[in-house]
Amino acid sequence: MERRKFMKSAGLAGILAAGSAPAIVHAQQQIRWRLASSFPKSLDTVYGASEAFAKYVSDATGGKFVISVHPAGELVPAFGVVDAVQQGTIDCAHTAPYYFFGKDESFAFDCTIPFGMTSRAMTAWMLEGNGMKLMREFYAQYNIVNFVCGNTGAQMGGWYRKEIKSVADLNGLKMRIGGFGGRVLAKLGAVSQNIPAGEIYQALERGTIDAAEWIGPYDDLRLGLHKVAKNYYYPAWWEGSTQFSVYINDKQWNGLSAEYKAIIEQASRAAHVTCQARYDARNPGALKQLIAEGAVLSRFPRDFMDAAFKASREVYAELNDTNPNWKKIYPDYSRFLADQVQWEAVAESNYAQYLAAQKL
Amino acid sequence: MERRKFMKSAGLAGILAAGSAPAIVHAQQQIRWRLASSFPKSLDTVYGASEAFAKYVSDATGGKFVISVHPAGELVPAFGVVDAVQQGTIDCAHTAPYYFFGKDESFAFDCTIPFGMTSRAMTAWMLEGNGMKLMREFYAQYNIVNFVCGNTGAQMGGWYRKEIKSVADLNGLKMRIGGFGGRVLAKLGAVSQNIPAGEIYQALERGTIDAAEWIGPYDDLRLGLHKVAKNYYYPAWWEGSTQFSVYINDKQWNGLSAEYKAIIEQASRAAHVTCQARYDARNPGALKQLIAEGAVLSRFPRDFMDAAFKASREVYAELNDTNPNWKKIYPDYSRFLADQVQWEAVAESNYAQYLAAQKL
Repeated sequence: MERRKFMKSAGLAGILAAGSAPAIVHAQQQIRWRLASSFPKSLDTVYGASEAFAKYVSDATGGKFVISVHPAGELVPAFGVVDAVQQGTIDCAHTAPYYFFGKDESFAFDCTIPFGMTSRAMTAWMLEGNGMKLMREFYAQYNIVNFVCGNTGAQMGGWYRKEIKSVADLNGLKMRIGGFGGRVLAKLGAVSQNIPAGEIYQALERGTIDAAEWIGPYDDLRLGLHKVAKNYYYPAWWEGSTQFSVYINDKQWNGLSAEYKAIIEQASRAAHVTCQARYDARNPGALKQLIAEGAVLSRFPRDFMDAAFKASREVYAELNDTNPNWKKIYPDYSRFLADQVQWEAVAESNYAQYLAAQKL
Repeated sequence: MERRKFMKSAGLAGILAAGSAPAIVHAQQQIRWRLASSFPKSLDTVYGASEAFAKYVSDATGGKFVISVHPAGELVPAFGVVDAVQQGTIDCAHTAPYYFFGKDESFAFDCTIPFGMTSRAMTAWMLEGNGMKLMREFYAQYNIVNFVCGNTGAQMGGWYRKEIKSVADLNGLKMRIGGFGGRVLAKLGAVSQNIPAGEIYQALERGTIDAAEWIGPYDDLRLGLHKVAKNYYYPAWWEGSTQFSVYINDKQWNGLSAEYKAIIEQASRAAHVTCQARYDARNPGALKQLIAEGAVLSRFPRDFMDAAFKASREVYAELNDTNPNWKKIYPDYSRFLADQVQWEAVAESNYAQYLAAQKL
């Protein structure tokens, strides 16, 4: 723990050097934390969310509370951050919780599940519904205190070497896709693989895989996947929005002053809204560029969406039977989602659809 | 200025009472500000955004920077907050900038314009597009430094005593509606009036007005308008999202330390996301209750939407000719909006529409 530099300074009182009124001198600990990101620096929107979070904390404390941000692999591997925070090897992390789907599918509620919440619904569930409370209870077993820290919005469905004309084309399809979406796709006959960002291009070019999903236009453009698989489908029914989280080791969290706790909480919310704003600001231009460079945009066939929706319900029924953590959270999540979807279909989506049909 | 209590305490150095490491003692000013809201306390979601903002600032500073929040009318009238901040009579305010449409239509860019940005697009334009920069330039002439602080999302189109079957039904219709929407409606023959919240119910009950728009289900339910005009239309094309802002007097702002400036900035972003989350979490239940109590939900007729869209373009063309401030901001706003709408129509809206058609 020598890397952390605590200067014990509680109970200090300052004396006013000049002036007539007594000064209120507040001594705050000097703190240095290390944050392990699950992402490379090159993913500057999502990695940038953790940098924004750290900057906000430093700025709000006049540089007294410093969180150094480390890309995936520098301190621990991308998928090692839960273990590292749990054990206190690192103080905090920034990740996409569904990566830990293999430990417990319930991690995904803090991120995304197939046919799950949109970005705004997710934030509402976390901050004003029962989401944060339920996830804090779940994370307690991992010594983690979680904070919302970014969202991508609805993602694109990825790049396909051949057209997808119906659900039958998924049979035997080898696809790079993360955990939960892959489990649903497996029910449709697809073979899912998780391949790190840096290896996707080559795998797709060589035909080792037939398709790969990544994030959305801005991030996808950086990988250049449109050059090796031009068919670009939407929407990613497995990532209707993807939330990122900051994980803090609970002992570190409990050791903070009320002031520092408030600053962390606000910095996470500020970084959360900043990250979504960046994705929204950056995606439209990237989409235009992808199309200009040959990407062919198509909606997933309806029978594929329907088959995937049905398969996702089967997976959720299985999890309700087998995973008590899942069973505790799922009813609240799905009730909140159903309410959100009903309301969203009234004012918000009618407004958006009308605008989309106009010449702007 | 006696209400502000500055304790000058810069340049202090503390002495460590016990322990081996030198303490870093940071003395921050004790500050008390007054915030004038344009809203009554009863509108607890929007008023709550200013309370959240003030609480965040206090919590992050250990109670050293205290902003007292005052409802409309307590310090200055609801529509007097721009003058009061400009003159320094109050330190800061929380308002819906389009209220000041009469001073200059450009205020509305910081809030909403007919057929304008959705909530996410608006936040993206403000925080990651040119929105904040352009609005700061505009507000400089009013000695105001602005910060985003809440959004309602797409609003409902209000309550009508009689059905609206076509745009012809707008001719001669007396409607309670705010400034900009009213100017567009006037082109369709409607007569707009701005009536304070507390008087809308009676005016609608007595037939002094034929229709009234307010916000959305949660706030509308509180006014009880469904009891006197059951026809509830959507979407409010004049408020595709409505952003609230915090206004700070520029001298007060410039007098803050870098640390306090950072805390204000983050508190505003945190309150911004909290406010939208509250609207999203609260509206669905309120909509169900309104329907259970007799509200009849309908989409505005297409010819009304089209006529209003066309009329809004005419108003914008007029403003480009007559208002140099408008002309400076409008091209950037409309370009950003067009890009957002194109991208939103791909992944986000296809995802939302698919979900809306499922049994969840």
